Amino acid sequence: MQNVKVIIWGLGAMGSGMAKMLLNKKGVDIVGAVGRGSKIGKSMYEVIGVERGDRPEVLIGSAEDVITEKAADVVLCCTDSYTKVAFERLKFVLEKKINVVSSAEEMSYPQAQQPELAKQLDEIAKANGVSILGTGINPGLIMDLLVVVMTGCCESVDHIISRRVNSLSPFGPTVMTEQGIGITVEEFKKGVETGHLAGHVGFQESISMISDAIGWNVEKITTSMDPIVTDVDRKSPYGFAKAGNVAGVAMKGYGYIDGELKIEMDHPQQIEPEQVGVTTGDYVIIKGTPNINMVNSPEVPGGIGTIAMCVNMIPQIINAKPGLRTMIDLPVPRAIMGDMRNLIDPECKIVK
Amino acid sequence: MQNVKVIIWGLGAMGSGMAKMLLNKKGVDIVGAVGRGSKIGKSMYEVIGVERGDRPEVLIGSAEDVITEKAADVVLCCTDSYTKVAFERLKFVLEKKINVVSSAEEMSYPQAQQPELAKQLDEIAKANGVSILGTGINPGLIMDLLVVVMTGCCESVDHIISRRVNSLSPFGPTVMTEQGIGITVEEFKKGVETGHLAGHVGFQESISMISDAIGWNVEKITTSMDPIVTDVDRKSPYGFAKAGNVAGVAMKGYGYIDGELKIEMDHPQQIEPEQVGVTTGDYVIIKGTPNINMVNSPEVPGGIGTIAMCVNMIPQIINAKPGLRTMIDLPVPRAIMGDMRNLIDPECKIVK
Ligand SMILES: NC(=O)c1ccc[n+]([C@@H]2O[C@H](COP(=O)([O-])OP(=O)(O)OC[C@H]3O[C@@H](n4cnc5c(N)ncnc54)[C@H](OP(=O)(O)O)[C@@H]3O)[C@@H](O)[C@H]2O)c1
Ligand SMILES: NC(=O)c1ccc[n+]([C@@H]2O[C@H](COP(=O)([O-])OP(=O)(O)OC[C@H]3O[C@@H](n4cnc5c(N)ncnc54)[C@H](OP(=O)(O)O)[C@@H]3O)[C@@H](O)[C@H]2O)c1
Repeated sequence: MQNVKVIIWGLGAMGSGMAKMLLNKKGVDIVGAVGRGSKIGKSMYEVIGVERGDRPEVLIGSAEDVITEKAADVVLCCTDSYTKVAFERLKFVLEKKINVVSSAEEMSYPQAQQPELAKQLDEIAKANGVSILGTGINPGLIMDLLVVVMTGCCESVDHIISRRVNSLSPFGPTVMTEQGIGITVEEFKKGVETGHLAGHVGFQESISMISDAIGWNVEKITTSMDPIVTDVDRKSPYGFAKAGNVAGVAMKGYGYIDGELKIEMDHPQQIEPEQVGVTTGDYVIIKGTPNINMVNSPEVPGGIGTIAMCVNMIPQIINAKPGLRTMIDLPVPRAIMGDMRNLIDPECKIVK
Repeated sequence: MQNVKVIIWGLGAMGSGMAKMLLNKKGVDIVGAVGRGSKIGKSMYEVIGVERGDRPEVLIGSAEDVITEKAADVVLCCTDSYTKVAFERLKFVLEKKINVVSSAEEMSYPQAQQPELAKQLDEIAKANGVSILGTGINPGLIMDLLVVVMTGCCESVDHIISRRVNSLSPFGPTVMTEQGIGITVEEFKKGVETGHLAGHVGFQESISMISDAIGWNVEKITTSMDPIVTDVDRKSPYGFAKAGNVAGVAMKGYGYIDGELKIEMDHPQQIEPEQVGVTTGDYVIIKGTPNINMVNSPEVPGGIGTIAMCVNMIPQIINAKPGLRTMIDLPVPRAIMGDMRNLIDPECKIVK
């Protein structure tokens, strides 16, 4: 069997990380990279900062040049957060008869907020005999799939709390700006109003994924977003919040079933949580038969986790039945420590 | 669609528990129960201690009488621990063109210790257009599938510790005898030698499942079994261990890859662990990129957990491609809080 062939669309933090991860794996080749602007024509190796060695050159090109019919087994699309924005790109790949893994948060469960586009993607994928999956660390694993797995050992479930308490300190200037680190409470409120501060994207998706998986009919999902105001000065490598200003964002999500609050998402993200005695971690707390009281501490880092989830799901999406797939209808994610080809059903390989 | 039709073979602790759980679920009926000896001819409701109400009677019968061709969508086989012992029963069901979920520990990954029988089960299932799965809490979820899921967010994995520290206090006299609670260290050693004390069954299966999932070639698996000798008297509802005697069993399992110890299973089971300051829980500790440090405390109770896992996997095994399936090639387990029929692919339903 030929090596698994991968194209990466978008060489930002996630796409570059996936490229580096893939270069360390057996039985898989990066055969193309799609960028824009000044990146076009450059070597992928140069952009991601890895020695090419004796590997064939990969020049960054436009989608039209790089993504041609059956040019790869899968395209990793790492350009977007929203299904609506990603849609045309995803369609473009599917119509070239290539499978897709997308890191867009909304694509982890597009049925939640974009049912019409989800339906279209499903149809386009089926018409072209390929499949498409959205995944990542969260949404994708921590606040949804992991919860679903743990309900698997429950006779019944009454209430779910999914909590991810993480540190923003490892992140760079872009995230500091996006999350409003260091701004005043006034500025924060304005940012939320104008939509400049989006906070975490994914609660609608996570809540819908969980409730659809276990058979609860969610009738209402609400979310809230509040500043985490620090009472001491906090300083991280790329961020600074003066006492009284914003050191992070507390996001909450609530899923209602039969008028009752049944699913709670609690996701405070801030710089230097340790400084104020906050322990980071991923929590799954299920009230049911039996109760589940799980924590992974410290939290799975968002960057590495997303890179790994997208790469590790490549075999599953190649092997999948054509159509739009989600984490709840594919076999579980797993690290790939051997040759990736061992995980591929030969009948499903595109580049034979 | 007709309700999902289930037959239960073996109304011991697990089979009875599954029956009770199923009676509380929508879209599913128990259409038969297989027992032996004095149970034959009795009402299942009487044996499991549940009011029949206006449900149709289910009389316990022999396998030949109850399990006829396409009599149900699935048979839950809850009679055995070992593939070799279960084999003829499983074959019998598959040849009646009915799917199987088995609670036998070795069936969670029969490839590990019975590759020839696993191959035969796969062939028989395929020849009859049905599928078969072994599952339970452990093996089945805690010390294997959950570990695999958490490697899914890892770029690479160096070393795995899977630990389950549980209390035997909730269990009855049979388990006390099986685990040697209260006997002397001498008696324990003799019991291990003669094979009368088996301890936990499943390390070979869990280690093989993990290593196959992530692509490690395990070349050697070793296990050990030691008495947990108590230095104080311990008393549980059905057990008593005098100071100096056996209060539990410490099982360990080791998987070697390329001459290196890579997978460690650590499973101490004892009565009244709290009395000596032992905190019970399920642990997944991965050294890799990133590290995972997860605990669910207290542990998922083994009885409820196994009952739930077997019942909750019914839709997945009905929908599966024909053949022998394992937890790593099916969609994740999940609680079933709605109508079970909503989870079934109509094409795969046996009793239409
Ligand atoms: N589900 C999860 O858990 C999860 C976790 C992390 C990230 N994500 C999402 O995944 C996406 C990628 O994350 P990131 O951290 O890598 O973001 P990023 O660093 O901003 O990278 C995005 C990359 O996509 C490129 N791009 C955008 N549109 C393009 C187009 N039309 N053609 C070619 N390239 C294009 C950008 O190019 P330029 O450099 O030229 O602008 C940039 O390199 C984000 O939307 C993020 O929210 C999800
Ligand atoms: N994977 C896991 O995590 C996990 C967890 C729990 C249990 N298990 C395994 O699952 C199996 C069932 O557990 P359990 O606690 O329910 O054991 P149990 O209480 O001993 O029940 C076994 C039942 O099977 C019946 N049986 C055995 N052979 C039969 C036959 N040929 N025809 C009809 N009935 C037969 C027995 O009938 P009689 O009463 O007439 O003897 C008994 O009712 C055990 O082997 C156990 O080790 C696995």
